[in-house]
Amino acid sequence: MELSQSAMRLTGQPMFRLLDAIKKREAAGQHFIHFEIGDPDFDSPQEVKIRASQAIRNNKSHYTSSQGLLDLRQEIATTLTTMYNLDMPIKASQVVIAPGCNPLIYCLLKILCNEGDYIRIPNPGFPTYQAAANVLNLNVTTEPEKPKLCIINSPCNPTGKVHSENVLQAFHTMRDLYGKFIISDEIYQFMNYREFMTPSICKYDPMFENTAVISGFSKTFAMTGWRIGFMISNEEICEKVSLLLQTLISCTNTFTQFASLGLMRKFPSEYWDYMELLKARRDIIVKGLNSIPGIHCEEPEGAFYVWPNIAATGLDSYAFAHLMLENGVGLLPGPDFGSEGKGFVRLAFCVDTEQIVKGIDLIKTALKKRKK
Amino acid sequence: MELSQSAMRLTGQPMFRLLDAIKKREAAGQHFIHFEIGDPDFDSPQEVKIRASQAIRNNKSHYTSSQGLLDLRQEIATTLTTMYNLDMPIKASQVVIAPGCNPLIYCLLKILCNEGDYIRIPNPGFPTYQAAANVLNLNVTTEPEKPKLCIINSPCNPTGKVHSENVLQAFHTMRDLYGKFIISDEIYQFMNYREFMTPSICKYDPMFENTAVISGFSKTFAMTGWRIGFMISNEEICEKVSLLLQTLISCTNTFTQFASLGLMRKFPSEYWDYMELLKARRDIIVKGLNSIPGIHCEEPEGAFYVWPNIAATGLDSYAFAHLMLENGVGLLPGPDFGSEGKGFVRLAFCVDTEQIVKGIDLIKTALKKRKK
Repeated sequence: MELSQSAMRLTGQPMFRLLDAIKKREAAGQHFIHFEIGDPDFDSPQEVKIRASQAIRNNKSHYTSSQGLLDLRQEIATTLTTMYNLDMPIKASQVVIAPGCNPLIYCLLKILCNEGDYIRIPNPGFPTYQAAANVLNLNVTTEPEKPKLCIINSPCNPTGKVHSENVLQAFHTMRDLYGKFIISDEIYQFMNYREFMTPSICKYDPMFENTAVISGFSKTFAMTGWRIGFMISNEEICEKVSLLLQTLISCTNTFTQFASLGLMRKFPSEYWDYMELLKARRDIIVKGLNSIPGIHCEEPEGAFYVWPNIAATGLDSYAFAHLMLENGVGLLPGPDFGSEGKGFVRLAFCVDTEQIVKGIDLIKTALKKRKK
Repeated sequence: MELSQSAMRLTGQPMFRLLDAIKKREAAGQHFIHFEIGDPDFDSPQEVKIRASQAIRNNKSHYTSSQGLLDLRQEIATTLTTMYNLDMPIKASQVVIAPGCNPLIYCLLKILCNEGDYIRIPNPGFPTYQAAANVLNLNVTTEPEKPKLCIINSPCNPTGKVHSENVLQAFHTMRDLYGKFIISDEIYQFMNYREFMTPSICKYDPMFENTAVISGFSKTFAMTGWRIGFMISNEEICEKVSLLLQTLISCTNTFTQFASLGLMRKFPSEYWDYMELLKARRDIIVKGLNSIPGIHCEEPEGAFYVWPNIAATGLDSYAFAHLMLENGVGLLPGPDFGSEGKGFVRLAFCVDTEQIVKGIDLIKTALKKRKK
């Protein structure tokens, strides 16, 4: 059977090739320190686990609306209106629930762009942006005036950088240059080490006329495997995205939605523990990496990744990642996140401090051995 | 913001318009008998509920592979190999897990067809086939030789018809006419009132060279809101679909996958209860409908829908559905399922026998009143 042109353009997330190599070596007995996956080793908050079991017991196991449970959408709308101090309250009809952020990114691109359109995405950036563009045959460009829309991501995966209000305002005022519509991926919005709230683009477009904000519970509440994310935009966009979701996924898991009720209204205590642990891990990994000759690592402001420049080791990103693979350290080559990732690697600090210290030692030793 | 051509072509599932009308009337106090939704009022089996809570307690809440949990894929592969008595065992690498069947239908169409290609779908048939074709800009045709692929669905939603082995063999041998690749939607495969197993297309293409079988747990085990389905095909197709799923949805809810382990190996006792209840409901609704002047209803062989011809009442399908809406009975007009649905309506027998009897009475009375 001949496959379609989209099938030929499929890339998925390039990191999975390396993940497979690590799994094979682990199966063969090699031990690994895992810096490669952005999935913290935290358990989900106790309260959401209890509510999920209750919802299952109470048979919340039937179809729900494609747009998502009204109560959950209302809670997200109300909470974010307060948090962002918006004059214009977000309505429940402006919220869409989906099984994670990926379906929302795909749906937004699909309803806003035609094949061949130009979009702007972060470089380096989360690989799904490029992968979705490939599937939909969109052109990624950095040239001004060409892009139909622009994806931004703050705090950023992989760099950990946070866009200041000035930068967000610039994206807003220069829409003619960077893309009239902005998809702001704010999945790490509450994982900011300097302040609780990360500045959001919605301040500059409170009616969400040309803006969609994407977020979810995966990272904030250590719920990656639950698959629940949300989007805020205007009603027309929400209606179209919901309609496409109906065809793509029918609806989001029902008891996961019931279990999530209450999370936004009052963050579970575990959230504060996660942030404290992550901050401690961040300090150790940044200090550790900077103690290695040839590596320079800036301190990330948010998310749970470090993005060291390893060019001065004399290795390119792939050779560096491969050397570490040989030595029991899983990390990702920068170019997996775009052309601007050359000379960088990404490490997620999703493992405990003991393993971080051990991993830094392994990296240091591997580089030393190589020089001899 | 100007929307894309796909956004303009979005139809979703037309039945949702009627569902909205019913919800509005219910909110205003009108009582309804619900024959409109294909979601039985059964609770999910006790064992899957218990295993889900255990998996949540054991923190099975992290990302899994996009293709799905290996143990679950292996169990599906082994069980179906035995059930279908296949000479060539299905391998775990030939199985893909997804959050329901809809993502699998979309992914298969996307990796197999280019814009403008022709496909054949059941008419009348499940509305997602047409909706997915609309989004992907595919042409639905009944002309021989044109279609690149063909979707079949047995037992069929909405007709309840089951394809005999002869019919399946005909689809297989006449691939040049009906589409070289067959997507066989077998979601109701275990909801057959004559025999446990419904004949499957895989008998005629045991290597799955040009075949993909789609199924899942939603209907068989009353797990609609859990969102878990699966696909069986050859390794190349499975790899491409998994890669596309990675971009679309990352992975399927992790604890739902753990909870589903064991379901296929030994069907929970509740499954047999569901089938007994459904059979009793079927007999009552068929008899009831046939007792109404102007309505002729064949007995469905599988699934949980009846598809009466109501042409002799003098009403068209929409007028009939609207009259019933006025009289507190929710059911769907046949044309929502394709042009061949003209003169028919669909009723799902997903409510208890008491409500079925009451619903039949309401239909009878509404038609009588109208004539006066």
